[in-house]
Amino acid sequence: MSVTLTDINTAFDQIAGHIVRTPCTRSETLSAQLGLDLFIKFENQQFTASFKERGALNCLLANSGHSGVIAMSAGNHAQALAYHGRRLNRPTTIVMPRTTPNAKVESTRVFGAEVILHGDHFDETRVHTLKLAQARGLHLIHPFDDPLVIAGQGTVGLEILQQVDDLDVLVVPVGGGGLMAGAGVAIKSLAPQVKLVGVQMSRFAGAHAAFHQRVEAGQDIASTVAEGIAVKTPGEHTVELMRQYVDDFQLVDEADVEQAIFDLLEIEKTVAEGAGAAPLALLRRHADQYRGKRVCMILSGGNIDMMILSSVLQRGLVRSNRLCRLQVEIPDYPGALAELTGLLGKLDSNIVEINHQRAFGGSSVRATLVELVLQLRGEEQLQQVTGNLAKANYDVLVLE
Amino acid sequence: MSVTLTDINTAFDQIAGHIVRTPCTRSETLSAQLGLDLFIKFENQQFTASFKERGALNCLLANSGHSGVIAMSAGNHAQALAYHGRRLNRPTTIVMPRTTPNAKVESTRVFGAEVILHGDHFDETRVHTLKLAQARGLHLIHPFDDPLVIAGQGTVGLEILQQVDDLDVLVVPVGGGGLMAGAGVAIKSLAPQVKLVGVQMSRFAGAHAAFHQRVEAGQDIASTVAEGIAVKTPGEHTVELMRQYVDDFQLVDEADVEQAIFDLLEIEKTVAEGAGAAPLALLRRHADQYRGKRVCMILSGGNIDMMILSSVLQRGLVRSNRLCRLQVEIPDYPGALAELTGLLGKLDSNIVEINHQRAFGGSSVRATLVELVLQLRGEEQLQQVTGNLAKANYDVLVLE
Repeated sequence: MSVTLTDINTAFDQIAGHIVRTPCTRSETLSAQLGLDLFIKFENQQFTASFKERGALNCLLANSGHSGVIAMSAGNHAQALAYHGRRLNRPTTIVMPRTTPNAKVESTRVFGAEVILHGDHFDETRVHTLKLAQARGLHLIHPFDDPLVIAGQGTVGLEILQQVDDLDVLVVPVGGGGLMAGAGVAIKSLAPQVKLVGVQMSRFAGAHAAFHQRVEAGQDIASTVAEGIAVKTPGEHTVELMRQYVDDFQLVDEADVEQAIFDLLEIEKTVAEGAGAAPLALLRRHADQYRGKRVCMILSGGNIDMMILSSVLQRGLVRSNRLCRLQVEIPDYPGALAELTGLLGKLDSNIVEINHQRAFGGSSVRATLVELVLQLRGEEQLQQVTGNLAKANYDVLVLE
Repeated sequence: MSVTLTDINTAFDQIAGHIVRTPCTRSETLSAQLGLDLFIKFENQQFTASFKERGALNCLLANSGHSGVIAMSAGNHAQALAYHGRRLNRPTTIVMPRTTPNAKVESTRVFGAEVILHGDHFDETRVHTLKLAQARGLHLIHPFDDPLVIAGQGTVGLEILQQVDDLDVLVVPVGGGGLMAGAGVAIKSLAPQVKLVGVQMSRFAGAHAAFHQRVEAGQDIASTVAEGIAVKTPGEHTVELMRQYVDDFQLVDEADVEQAIFDLLEIEKTVAEGAGAAPLALLRRHADQYRGKRVCMILSGGNIDMMILSSVLQRGLVRSNRLCRLQVEIPDYPGALAELTGLLGKLDSNIVEINHQRAFGGSSVRATLVELVLQLRGEEQLQQVTGNLAKANYDVLVLE
């Protein structure tokens, strides 16, 4: 059973009015930086902040005979289903692994779903979900490998074609492949000249491997900043459709995606989760391949933990030398620290943290190491600060 | 010389197509939390991320005979003028105090404006700006107290009335008063039943005082998180219009605004600067006054330093007990720290920082104080952790 343009058009009509028709706008600054015309489809502006509502709602509406639905998900699919399930008065059961962080449980419970925590491993949770579906007579909605879900996600592709003229390239984040398969059917049916590029994390490259007919070397890596696309094995339907419609797959690394989250926050004033920022990471990495093209990226979602976002921000400030860690040796007499901090103040550098080590390091018993975290304006000021400290006869080491 | 609805309609036609018609959408989560219908006008989605483009562009277009323009501003007005000046091939000169952070200079220079740094105090900078305008024959564009600027900002009011039906209340951040005066003319001319509320920072309440015909006690406070509305003295035109059209002024504090920035990021996935978040701060503080009403807030801008945003995030996590600092006394023998950290691990609390103090504090020479920063899920888990530590006979102190 495959998915066709007709299925996507039907889904589009079904879900219209209950899904946000998210904006798709040109980013002037990022376009100038990348040397291409960049359009961003802001799927983080859906009510539960991800595109997953499209597929979930399409599935709910198409299976209106069933009393209740069930799904296994700790992420955006769970929230999407819970939200539209409550809106449509359909009892919704969500099964999550026992180890799921409480915040994720809460963000699904808040929409009125029954959340069941079961299993220490993904497989145990899956088996329990299937059992529950059978025992309670619930309709199981797969997060990606279901033709109705794929058709729902495909409606993003229709909207993009309506919103961007003369599109050359569409970059889509890929986990299980539901969004990419759906968008692929829509785009290639209506505008086959558009190049479709999937982006995956190097650490979770299952769809990338399946696309290239390779078996993914069984990595067992704990985590990624893009947990929304941390899927080991893509779907059967989705892989079949992706082989048919996708032109290329490219991989990005953790640091690329962190930087992309930072840039979307600073430049676009928008919150992207890792998966949502992955296409920008790819465009930064391979900008030369897309120069001068009209490129659209799907910013698939904005659900990122505020603690993680705060770390991403700090690490971004470190990367751009707006936060720097220096080790400076000072003589061990009263007033020495005042001399150093006085000089730093004159150099207009703000001290964020200071640590004075007495027992360890230091070239002699009469010297001591001070470790400083400074707030600076970037590389240029860092050079200026270290240069001036050296001129004043301080031994300075910039720590990574 | 006053501002009328005709002036605003003219401005609307003039600037149309070169200003983003920003979305104004209902926030389901914030509406539910506040017990009212909240609509947010996302002026942070303008190209330079603030409403200031409206007034600046209106002024540029109305004074097309002048060769060049000049303004004194280190903030959003400078960026707005620089961006549209370059677009229209109008040489733009921006004067900033010498102490302006480099990041702000750069974010204006990047749009092609000539930035001149002059004066240690606001007044010196102002005098120099006037001199330069005279000497070079440049047209001075005031950031708020200019009828053309006020008329331009008023176009936000027109859009809001088109975008929100049956509006009851509009909450507007006020610094110099340009936005409020313009929106006031637009709203009260077309929909006099809408209640207009201005919000100011307690630390910079000049417009609030002028509105109440009081002289503001001369505070000389250094800083606020809402620097976009840190204006000591509002304009003459703006105060006259605000006295005529505004129904009420309310004040908010720094912590209120920090929390509002945090909420807009976490819930709305959008970056607000302090001024842009101030209306939400006011609604949280006085939610009871607006219960059941249809309320719109102008999220006036999104230009916030990433270092500040990172601090706001961390402080928000601290406020909601998602980051907690504990002081625990442990016996001073090998393995004691392992016992404590082992227990914390079992309680599912993530250690972010740890500091082991030997010489200071501690109830005896055989005990030592450990200071921990923990990542938790909130109040409930904090109680659980401290409760379990106490049960295991640890002396625990939660530090602020």
